[in-house]
Amino acid sequence: MDLLKPGFTHKDLLKIDDENLPLLADEVRAVIIDTVKKNGGHLGSSLGVVELTIAMLKVFDPLNDRIIFDVGHQSYPYKILTDRFDKFQTLRMKDGISGFPRRSESPYDHFNTGHSSTSISAALGYAKARDLLHEKRNVIAFIGDASLINGLAFEALNYVQETHTNFIIILNDNTHSISKRVGGFSTVLAELSANNWYRAVKNFFRRHFHTSSRHPYNGNTNPLARVRNLLKAFVRPINIFDKLGIKYWGPFDGHDIKTAMRMMTLAKNYYKPVILHFNTVKGKGLPEAEADPTKYHQVSPSGTVKARTWSEAASDIAEELAMKDERIVCFTAAMMTGVKLERFSQTFPDRFFDVGIAESHMLTMAAGLAAGGMRPWVFIYSTFLQRAMDQLMHDVALQNLPVVIMVDRAGLVGSDGDTHQGMLDISWGRAVPNLEIYAPCDEDSLRDSMLKASKRNGPTLIRYPRGAIPQGKLTVDIDAEGIAEIHDGVKWALLGNGASVGIMLEARDLAMREGVDVPGVYDVRRVKPIDSESVSKILNRYETVAVIEDNYINGGFGEAVGSVIAEGGYNTRLLRFGVPDVCVKHATQSEQRELYGLTARNIIDSYRNEAQRTIG
Amino acid sequence: MDLLKPGFTHKDLLKIDDENLPLLADEVRAVIIDTVKKNGGHLGSSLGVVELTIAMLKVFDPLNDRIIFDVGHQSYPYKILTDRFDKFQTLRMKDGISGFPRRSESPYDHFNTGHSSTSISAALGYAKARDLLHEKRNVIAFIGDASLINGLAFEALNYVQETHTNFIIILNDNTHSISKRVGGFSTVLAELSANNWYRAVKNFFRRHFHTSSRHPYNGNTNPLARVRNLLKAFVRPINIFDKLGIKYWGPFDGHDIKTAMRMMTLAKNYYKPVILHFNTVKGKGLPEAEADPTKYHQVSPSGTVKARTWSEAASDIAEELAMKDERIVCFTAAMMTGVKLERFSQTFPDRFFDVGIAESHMLTMAAGLAAGGMRPWVFIYSTFLQRAMDQLMHDVALQNLPVVIMVDRAGLVGSDGDTHQGMLDISWGRAVPNLEIYAPCDEDSLRDSMLKASKRNGPTLIRYPRGAIPQGKLTVDIDAEGIAEIHDGVKWALLGNGASVGIMLEARDLAMREGVDVPGVYDVRRVKPIDSESVSKILNRYETVAVIEDNYINGGFGEAVGSVIAEGGYNTRLLRFGVPDVCVKHATQSEQRELYGLTARNIIDSYRNEAQRTIG
Repeated sequence: MDLLKPGFTHKDLLKIDDENLPLLADEVRAVIIDTVKKNGGHLGSSLGVVELTIAMLKVFDPLNDRIIFDVGHQSYPYKILTDRFDKFQTLRMKDGISGFPRRSESPYDHFNTGHSSTSISAALGYAKARDLLHEKRNVIAFIGDASLINGLAFEALNYVQETHTNFIIILNDNTHSISKRVGGFSTVLAELSANNWYRAVKNFFRRHFHTSSRHPYNGNTNPLARVRNLLKAFVRPINIFDKLGIKYWGPFDGHDIKTAMRMMTLAKNYYKPVILHFNTVKGKGLPEAEADPTKYHQVSPSGTVKARTWSEAASDIAEELAMKDERIVCFTAAMMTGVKLERFSQTFPDRFFDVGIAESHMLTMAAGLAAGGMRPWVFIYSTFLQRAMDQLMHDVALQNLPVVIMVDRAGLVGSDGDTHQGMLDISWGRAVPNLEIYAPCDEDSLRDSMLKASKRNGPTLIRYPRGAIPQGKLTVDIDAEGIAEIHDGVKWALLGNGASVGIMLEARDLAMREGVDVPGVYDVRRVKPIDSESVSKILNRYETVAVIEDNYINGGFGEAVGSVIAEGGYNTRLLRFGVPDVCVKHATQSEQRELYGLTARNIIDSYRNEAQRTIG
Repeated sequence: MDLLKPGFTHKDLLKIDDENLPLLADEVRAVIIDTVKKNGGHLGSSLGVVELTIAMLKVFDPLNDRIIFDVGHQSYPYKILTDRFDKFQTLRMKDGISGFPRRSESPYDHFNTGHSSTSISAALGYAKARDLLHEKRNVIAFIGDASLINGLAFEALNYVQETHTNFIIILNDNTHSISKRVGGFSTVLAELSANNWYRAVKNFFRRHFHTSSRHPYNGNTNPLARVRNLLKAFVRPINIFDKLGIKYWGPFDGHDIKTAMRMMTLAKNYYKPVILHFNTVKGKGLPEAEADPTKYHQVSPSGTVKARTWSEAASDIAEELAMKDERIVCFTAAMMTGVKLERFSQTFPDRFFDVGIAESHMLTMAAGLAAGGMRPWVFIYSTFLQRAMDQLMHDVALQNLPVVIMVDRAGLVGSDGDTHQGMLDISWGRAVPNLEIYAPCDEDSLRDSMLKASKRNGPTLIRYPRGAIPQGKLTVDIDAEGIAEIHDGVKWALLGNGASVGIMLEARDLAMREGVDVPGVYDVRRVKPIDSESVSKILNRYETVAVIEDNYINGGFGEAVGSVIAEGGYNTRLLRFGVPDVCVKHATQSEQRELYGLTARNIIDSYRNEAQRTIG
């Protein structure tokens, strides 16, 4: 490490000679690889944009200008180079550096992200705010090719010309989302990549103007630059961006810092919106990541034990069911590896759809398939289902179509941060008519839920947490209607599902060890419709029920129980444990559970206090 | 009426000579104009597609083929001509013909709609289902130009080439959504409209093949047709659709039935996806509607009294606030007239954004403006907010940005049917962190909510119902924190907000008249965060509280109260009145309230029964 020293700031970067910038890039890569191997995180995207980030930080003023990263998992080099080098080893750790841009973390971060395709809309907003407030700053949306095909990005692109404003889109084209890029729009990008405009212009510049990065083109004042702009306007190919009112320049080599700086400088001085198209290599600089970018998109911390995951179990069972029922097809939105559908996609290539980052389309297309007589299964992370709620309501539920929504990464998901938590599927799903909701706690109940879903003539949502599926059986009465008794209890009962079942069993053990009333334990496998009969049996039997929820308590199952108690005139006291009305902080899953009181310890202590308070 | 006689069916249509079809079109128009003037409904779109609908019904088999209307408000001619002529005068009435396609209504309707831009995704689903089930049928997405710019439609277009299937897109280009078309993509369509390909091909056909509609081009078998296809491939202009793997043919005159039939026949026999681009005139055949298509997009039933609406009040107040605060900007997604922002858009042209049918982009761009120091106000119907829930969560709420969401048409909205009800904003919004939710009941409390929102440094959602705003004051204590007492009561209290306040006051009057315990009446102006202090006062004071909700009770405010009761160990009994877990039927607002028990009569009777049951 020659350049990146402790205390490195953005000002230090500005002092580095252009010739030494490739060296800096190497050092940034080394830091990223080292940290991600220890802490886990997004590797490939960040390695691919080191040079582009350095160029941006040379050309733009990251405090006054507004650089907005799309998705944001490619922001590690930016963080390292904007005064966060010293803290970077705390990446994704509790109270450490977030894996995504966070305005609360640094004045260099201008827009929080995590989900894809928001950057162009946000940039348009920032640009209009600047215009209306008569400020002077550049606004830059830094977006990957995979994010461009999402409807949100298209809506923003379509709106650009109506805004009469100026901003820059930097398109980081690595031909990958997490897996390979999907859809017809990639043809458009590929055609652009194949054109020879860039080479022609570059050669022309080289021959006639002896340009260098020390002599930037400040286009609007310099008559020479105006000639160049004219030239560019003349030779550029006609394409969709031009029609949308956005000047297209590219493609350029995104690993050539000097070219990147030169083009960014030109764009900065141009009088209308520009899209700069850079080709980059995902995972650049790490041979194994370049060779298999999908595998190295996100990396687990070293030492992670490879236990069987919920995702694996769910996809195995889906495959079993698909063997028997030819109507079953499976969907993912650019998350094939995450939801573990690789083998399914090979076993049933005709019955597998990866739609790219297009959650809304996925749900509506699934509705079409169901209306057409098929049985679509949609595999989606809870946080991304937020992107398709109207399609779930309007296209699937109102038509009561047999679409199964397999909600992976439901509940607390750990270090990905507030944008990625699966907090809302229960609260939002409970209000959707015709929808049944299951939250199994082990592989048996997962299979049972999936079997039930496969037979239903209506939509079913099955949520399951991130991580390892419990080995063995947690729950016994697999034929129970909606709530299964796992253990009988004295005076009080615990109600929960999914990841909460393990916590409830632990709480019961703790109660026994500490001489507290031993609670009954009930597996609320079906969240909606509520199993009224079982609930009223439980309420009649216990003085207190505690509902344990791996989601927001607002709108959660606990509220449904509260309403039953209050409407039915039961004397049962309700305790609720779940995630309060906050933005969930990044930390490990178990740290998050600790933070929000989703622990056996907290449950037992709360009951003890409550019992004392009531007696007192 | 010569052709449209009582009992008219699709079979009768098939018997009509091509020469007489324009006459049929005139008769269909007359029926639509007559019925919509009486019942209210969508006029302009349906008048514009009469010829295209007739052509579709001649060329395709509407029972076996799958014609999918986008949005669906242009489906009136289709309904009239597919065995529903006799019932058409019940349009939008309770138990009558829906204003949108409904599978439960007719075997001719294949996909329920109401929201825009779902048709291409649904068609892809139907097409793949057909392929996988080895069926033979045509699949047709019938979509307007304004729906094409929504992200969902783009995601579907982008995915077409991955599906390796065949279907037809019929693009009904009237250059309008509800108001004028928005965005850069309209340039693309306009350029296509200006090209002369169609005329060239038509002339070529005329001269060389003496074609007529009795001699359809069954392209795949006929060598002549192959020549024609080659020819077409040769002369067609290169455009974005081609790049997305969709053959583009057009533009054609959408009011020329013969041409439309000819082109649909060609498309039907073509070996890959085709988009047929038709230019039509919105409101065609009704001079006043052709002249002012926005005004005649949707028409109120004759005899509708024009009282001051919630939308008018909200936009007036927004204008007042914007006069004082230059940071305020207003957004709509193609609903300027609906939310009554016409005058605002004229007073503040630089601070008004109509983004077209692009709700997701609207919320994220608003977030960008807020991050940039502005105060964006987003005016959106409750049902369309469903389209932007992730943007509300991910971009606005998690960043705690001062965006105000003005949720118009919240609650029961009447005859537009299940797809348009504002049932979910409370249930979904309650789970969103940092979000405050207000539901004012009169103009004073609306103004107060808007003032509070304008001062907050975080997101605020203000919901208000469809229709007339109460004249005069319903609520008194405007300074109350979250819940205001309107009337003190005996033994029981009514809690509600928005449209429920009128019902509660009526119920109180009814109680007095009938000698039932006179309930207290409480205006729950702020739904979130819950005003715990007032709630606990109320619970301490009354034996029973009834929560009245103009939304789904699942996840609603009643559940929050239920949880407070159950957690706090109150002895108060809860009654809940609201919309149950069903798809809301189309009917008038008051019929809907009757249907779901949101009436003074039902509240009083339920209380009386409950009281008797408890004593018994």
